[in-house]
Amino acid sequence: MTDTTACELAITRLSTREADFDTRLESLLAWEGVSGHDIQQRVDDILAAVRARGDAALIEYSNRFDRLAVTSMIELTLGPARLRQAFEGLPEAQRAALAAAAERIRAYHQHQKPESWRYTEADGSVLGQQVTPLDRAGIYVPGGKAAYPSSVLMNAIPAHVAGVREIVMVVPMPDGVLNELVLAAAHLAGVDHVFTIGGAQAVAALAYGTETVPRVDKIVGPGNIYVATAKRAVFGQVGIDMIAGPSEILVVSDGGTDPEWLAMDLFSQAEHDEDAQAILVGWDAEHLAAVETAMAALLPTMEREPIIRESLRCRGAVILCTDRDEAVTLINRIAPEHLELSVADPDAWLPSVRHAGAVFMGRYTAEALGDYCAGPNHVLPTSGTSRFSSPLGVYDFQKRSSIIHCSSQGASTLGETASVLARGESLTAHARSAEYRIKK
Amino acid sequence: MTDTTACELAITRLSTREADFDTRLESLLAWEGVSGHDIQQRVDDILAAVRARGDAALIEYSNRFDRLAVTSMIELTLGPARLRQAFEGLPEAQRAALAAAAERIRAYHQHQKPESWRYTEADGSVLGQQVTPLDRAGIYVPGGKAAYPSSVLMNAIPAHVAGVREIVMVVPMPDGVLNELVLAAAHLAGVDHVFTIGGAQAVAALAYGTETVPRVDKIVGPGNIYVATAKRAVFGQVGIDMIAGPSEILVVSDGGTDPEWLAMDLFSQAEHDEDAQAILVGWDAEHLAAVETAMAALLPTMEREPIIRESLRCRGAVILCTDRDEAVTLINRIAPEHLELSVADPDAWLPSVRHAGAVFMGRYTAEALGDYCAGPNHVLPTSGTSRFSSPLGVYDFQKRSSIIHCSSQGASTLGETASVLARGESLTAHARSAEYRIKK
Repeated sequence: MTDTTACELAITRLSTREADFDTRLESLLAWEGVSGHDIQQRVDDILAAVRARGDAALIEYSNRFDRLAVTSMIELTLGPARLRQAFEGLPEAQRAALAAAAERIRAYHQHQKPESWRYTEADGSVLGQQVTPLDRAGIYVPGGKAAYPSSVLMNAIPAHVAGVREIVMVVPMPDGVLNELVLAAAHLAGVDHVFTIGGAQAVAALAYGTETVPRVDKIVGPGNIYVATAKRAVFGQVGIDMIAGPSEILVVSDGGTDPEWLAMDLFSQAEHDEDAQAILVGWDAEHLAAVETAMAALLPTMEREPIIRESLRCRGAVILCTDRDEAVTLINRIAPEHLELSVADPDAWLPSVRHAGAVFMGRYTAEALGDYCAGPNHVLPTSGTSRFSSPLGVYDFQKRSSIIHCSSQGASTLGETASVLARGESLTAHARSAEYRIKK
Repeated sequence: MTDTTACELAITRLSTREADFDTRLESLLAWEGVSGHDIQQRVDDILAAVRARGDAALIEYSNRFDRLAVTSMIELTLGPARLRQAFEGLPEAQRAALAAAAERIRAYHQHQKPESWRYTEADGSVLGQQVTPLDRAGIYVPGGKAAYPSSVLMNAIPAHVAGVREIVMVVPMPDGVLNELVLAAAHLAGVDHVFTIGGAQAVAALAYGTETVPRVDKIVGPGNIYVATAKRAVFGQVGIDMIAGPSEILVVSDGGTDPEWLAMDLFSQAEHDEDAQAILVGWDAEHLAAVETAMAALLPTMEREPIIRESLRCRGAVILCTDRDEAVTLINRIAPEHLELSVADPDAWLPSVRHAGAVFMGRYTAEALGDYCAGPNHVLPTSGTSRFSSPLGVYDFQKRSSIIHCSSQGASTLGETASVLARGESLTAHARSAEYRIKK
């Protein structure tokens, strides 16, 4: 591959032909969101305080961490009217865009709704599965610089589509500042209450409940290391979504997409934060060089240039592979959060993609479209966790109950089998309970 | 309600009419499976050692904790032939019962397989969701007294039905003792490899991989506090199932079921261990007393009498409520792992049951039938977590990828919306990436 010369872009270059490729790729991808003992301890203290003292602790922490001077929870509570007001106060273009996005997200997630089912056996026994929504979901929304209205839509709409009875949102209000777009999104997404609290204290309030904040059944949404640590700690008391790592994209190009388009797609990932990861893979060295040249040329024009530069330098990469098959191997090795298949016939690739949070197919499908309004969720498994987890979806706000209804004949037949197996496990009360139902 | 007099049964009696009912119920249900700092530290050490030294550490820990004297991983590995041999060596009745159970479990779980889907919009854009199995699943099976072949079936068969490429089982071999029924179940369930290792070291091996043990994508299965603590620690590196608390049952009786049957159903829960919880609810005081009398009479005849007695004394309860509606409220308050609706018309109850791991309907459906062979999974959410989680299922061994394939017209339309929203979030690389695809 070409060396960095004229262009000022620093980015790691790898080739699958190099002997140490696997090791270098491994270290490029390595990410462990471990919270140190210190953070763990502070989070534990906050959780214990909110659990013990409820609203009083919430008010104290909010005053301290968000630099407020509130004296009651009323000042940290926003009702539906305030959310509607935020929506109605938006400029027309933003209102229309937000509503269009919400509508598309809702339409997509409607397809995820599973049905309850049951079947009847020959002896009259019925087996099945009943699907029910959560009673109450809590949505964590970061405040400050990472306050994203699109995240409100992506987290709350699936809950709403799932039929959750009550959706509670928390969003911190640092220095008393609220983001009107965030509140407007909450209005559109079907959020019932908003509490302007954040950090580990907000997670504690949702997990345990306070005099004012109702206990929820599941907490979803991104947050900083304190929020992530708190979510991990309350997991079990309540459900949580995945603990998210930095956002990442893997762009695979066959050489036929405009290098400027690809450069900007990579930038759109890198601009999230310095830890974000943008990787380009291809087997056409000249094309890869052209994308690098485009990146170098476009970078000075970017509003978030310092972040993009740092992200590309620390965690970005351009990987030259030998052919399409090797690109597929890389996809499944990396198991990316976002996969852009910028190739002529992406449908031919899809069956061999085993692990990816979301697949953006073809030259037109910029990842950014999926972040906002294509319809699918933008909350996706990061750091290779698409090996075992899924985009946030309606299924995260529902649960299943098994249904078993034995006929007297069914209970008799099954009782014979259960009796043998239970005795094999020395669980004789199990055996005798089954045997009572065996017909003499 | 009647007092404990002649009978020797100690069990908590509650009535919803008592002023302190809510508090007493709360304390009865309270369970927190918190691992102390000491256990946490020991588990962290084990995880770090296995991660750093692989097989060597595994061998050391196995020798120490399971009182073995092995020198290589070969001695801790069982292949398919050994599993088949275990199955073929079983007595005919056990072989038939195990095969019948496996077949029914497989048939039920086949119904859980979700389909990939996609739809095409008017402008030619395609949206969808692709469902794929995990590459590799790890099944933890406890050794010693809690070695249950039924658990092997319940954990491994859903993985097999999901299409998981490789199923790895770990089961400790304390003092060199193996359970032939457990190995036979592994054979039937489609397990590929077995390693006779356990504890936190086995969880570490599955999460990180060693020279011999392949790294898996998800670890499921029950274990002691060390196993649970290790699973919680590696969550994120790999997927895990829920951290299980003690097993519990809520039996709701309308008074029409034979008291002896109900007594034995409650015993079958209580015999698991001293922390297991068996609760009976009804509005017919005389009937509840009759069940208590049956329990007192049957208890001395039980093989696991000391465990049952202790479980009922510490965590059991008989709850008198006023009517059917109050029973439903209690069900949803408790969100039981196992719910037995021992009533005349359980179908009429079902729509109001919002939270339960599995529902055993009618007088014939003993919970024990579900533990072994009815078909649905016996790995169920405990300690009220059925509020937000589901039985183990095929869906736990699959994941979803979102599919987005924009036509050029679709990308142009969506680009307009994405641009407005991205600029609202000050993410201008996102905006420009979308804008490149807008038709001029």
